[in-house]
Amino acid sequence: MAKITKVSPLAPKGGFPKLPVIDGVRFSTIAAGVKYAGRTDVMLAEIDAGSAIAGAFTRSSTRSAPVLDCQSKLGRVEDDGKGFAFLVNSGNSNAFTGRVGVEAVNAITNATAKALNLPSSHVYTSSTGVIGEPLPYEKITDALGALSQSLDSNRIEDAARAIMTTDTFPKGSTATCEIGGIEVTVVGIAKGSGMIAPDMATMLVYIFTDAKISQAGLQDMVSRQNEHTFNSITVDSDTSTSDSLLVAATGTSGADVEDNETFERTLGVVMKDLAHQVVRDGEGATKFVEIQVQGAADNGEARKVAMSVANSPLVKTAIAGEDPNWGRIVMAVGKSGAQADRDRLSIWFGDVLVAENGWESPTYVEADAATHMKGEDLLIRVDLGIGAGHSTVWTCDLTHGYIEINADYRS
Amino acid sequence: MAKITKVSPLAPKGGFPKLPVIDGVRFSTIAAGVKYAGRTDVMLAEIDAGSAIAGAFTRSSTRSAPVLDCQSKLGRVEDDGKGFAFLVNSGNSNAFTGRVGVEAVNAITNATAKALNLPSSHVYTSSTGVIGEPLPYEKITDALGALSQSLDSNRIEDAARAIMTTDTFPKGSTATCEIGGIEVTVVGIAKGSGMIAPDMATMLVYIFTDAKISQAGLQDMVSRQNEHTFNSITVDSDTSTSDSLLVAATGTSGADVEDNETFERTLGVVMKDLAHQVVRDGEGATKFVEIQVQGAADNGEARKVAMSVANSPLVKTAIAGEDPNWGRIVMAVGKSGAQADRDRLSIWFGDVLVAENGWESPTYVEADAATHMKGEDLLIRVDLGIGAGHSTVWTCDLTHGYIEINADYRS
Repeated sequence: MAKITKVSPLAPKGGFPKLPVIDGVRFSTIAAGVKYAGRTDVMLAEIDAGSAIAGAFTRSSTRSAPVLDCQSKLGRVEDDGKGFAFLVNSGNSNAFTGRVGVEAVNAITNATAKALNLPSSHVYTSSTGVIGEPLPYEKITDALGALSQSLDSNRIEDAARAIMTTDTFPKGSTATCEIGGIEVTVVGIAKGSGMIAPDMATMLVYIFTDAKISQAGLQDMVSRQNEHTFNSITVDSDTSTSDSLLVAATGTSGADVEDNETFERTLGVVMKDLAHQVVRDGEGATKFVEIQVQGAADNGEARKVAMSVANSPLVKTAIAGEDPNWGRIVMAVGKSGAQADRDRLSIWFGDVLVAENGWESPTYVEADAATHMKGEDLLIRVDLGIGAGHSTVWTCDLTHGYIEINADYRS
Repeated sequence: MAKITKVSPLAPKGGFPKLPVIDGVRFSTIAAGVKYAGRTDVMLAEIDAGSAIAGAFTRSSTRSAPVLDCQSKLGRVEDDGKGFAFLVNSGNSNAFTGRVGVEAVNAITNATAKALNLPSSHVYTSSTGVIGEPLPYEKITDALGALSQSLDSNRIEDAARAIMTTDTFPKGSTATCEIGGIEVTVVGIAKGSGMIAPDMATMLVYIFTDAKISQAGLQDMVSRQNEHTFNSITVDSDTSTSDSLLVAATGTSGADVEDNETFERTLGVVMKDLAHQVVRDGEGATKFVEIQVQGAADNGEARKVAMSVANSPLVKTAIAGEDPNWGRIVMAVGKSGAQADRDRLSIWFGDVLVAENGWESPTYVEADAATHMKGEDLLIRVDLGIGAGHSTVWTCDLTHGYIEINADYRS
């Protein structure tokens, strides 16, 4: 694990936000010594009975034992009057660990269930860190007594810190809305800074709300919002074997949000904010970049182009160099596989129209685009001029910091 | 353009090879000042009448005016007793230059045709370098008098040097075979070091042989061999708008190679050698890596996995760090989209079996794999354990050198 000594320059300026308490959810953390020394590395969240749990996971065909276990449980739990738990460790992903990986998941979920008097089918576990090394799960199961005795509804920031790996700052977000005169609150925490690409990412996300909603209704909202948030970010095009998003709705506010668009938007605000924070902590990132594509044959084609631009090493290094090198955008559009016509393509850096009609715009002054590139938050806009398809994705630049962190990860 | 002061550590140890003369082909070069100062940047190859010309080009949807012009001419030329010419400049790719880009191609091909007394439909031109800036084509057309007067069959190494951009060494290769008692020779030169990925790459390749063959027969061989050579390498997953491969068969040896497998293999040897040299000059490369995938459902699935591993920034940075981080290989297999079963997957670094049956192999000793990773030429082998599909691709590592070169390319 490379030493991260500096907080990302793109971290939210105010630090970790003050997150309101969600009634019915309590957190605890511990330094179990799974891999790291001198820091917390396990977090437990206990969630009251009657809650709905939804989720989304990596689509990797080599996904980890904890992910497969969560997927097998989600949406299949009967209401048996029992609560739920999320148990998460950092330092070891328990991925590609064969039979012993499954045994570790069973040991952890069983020990958590026992400590909290829950059925193990109500316990969701996630692991993040190195792939292919056996998870020393006894360090976690031995800690469950202490974890279950220190649960506190005010400890969500501690939980955000315990799940960090190469993250340079803990990630939290909150939003509220009013439903039928009742204030509904959504809070969330996340970790993730590399191996971030659609079909989830090396990303763990835990969201809690006091809204009242069915499991199926919550799952629909989570799946829809996931496409425009966590599945629309990419740091390095690599996809983790462990990505997990879990959402718990306790219903403790009493506000029924079934099929409620206002609530879904509020949930989406928290998901997008956390997704952006993951990009802002992209390994070595110095620029946060929004890629907007419009004018594609359809939304899928627009997404292909946006992801091709966002994942191009040549585009990402040009951004790192603050170089308005629009030729590399043209290249990335061309290689995307999407329908494109060189002579209908327009490209903007921020508000600056750079290229149109198959060539540099006659109004283009490079100094204007260069000024935009010196900012921290950049916008690259592409209009293919063909149809109405559009897509927005977010990424960061590719810098020496990325190489430093990743050429030395296991050492 | 970043200053390249050092030759790639992966360059062939013997320097540029001694290339035999192909009767019927003559070269000249000049320092026309297209962009660079103090070096040659235009090369002309004149090819005798009666030759067959074949080629392969980038599949980018934003390909350059010279590429579109070459594609429109290839295979459509009648035998009118006239020779052919290749005219290539470095420093400016004449890509995404709109109408003036087409005018530049016409001016160059017309001036070359006039200087050599050819129809312009027999002149193929390529341009490599910055995208989106108008090509100062008068510098090239003004030089055609001098170029046409200095043609010499011994100047192919000069030609290899004139087409370089960020290349750190000129690339040449040769092979011979005997067909019906006659020795047949193939020689080739190439440039390319970044923006290298299938569907060609930022790669220009010119191959010459004294074999006798029809245009259609030569084109078939070139297209087939291209898939296993230039379309099986990747430096950074980016695809150029300008990639061009042109092959000229003069027939001057008198050996008829129509449908001849020995000749096709010999042509393939030169193509593969040049493709490997392009990877060995990958921007910032310190390791040459062969990725072999077997046991896939079919060859297409094997290629998906091989390219996913070869293009993964996390795999490439681990290689740079000499870290046998097989977890990242598992990750790259998982994200490839190909059918894979975690528990049937086997992974080798060199001869060292690292993982099998969904976990680290019981015979695995990390020190053995670490020793392999310290070499310059690495082999990563993946067996999916599902079917008979296989594929081999070549790539290099991702280092600080890549960032240095590309974060500062236009400055």
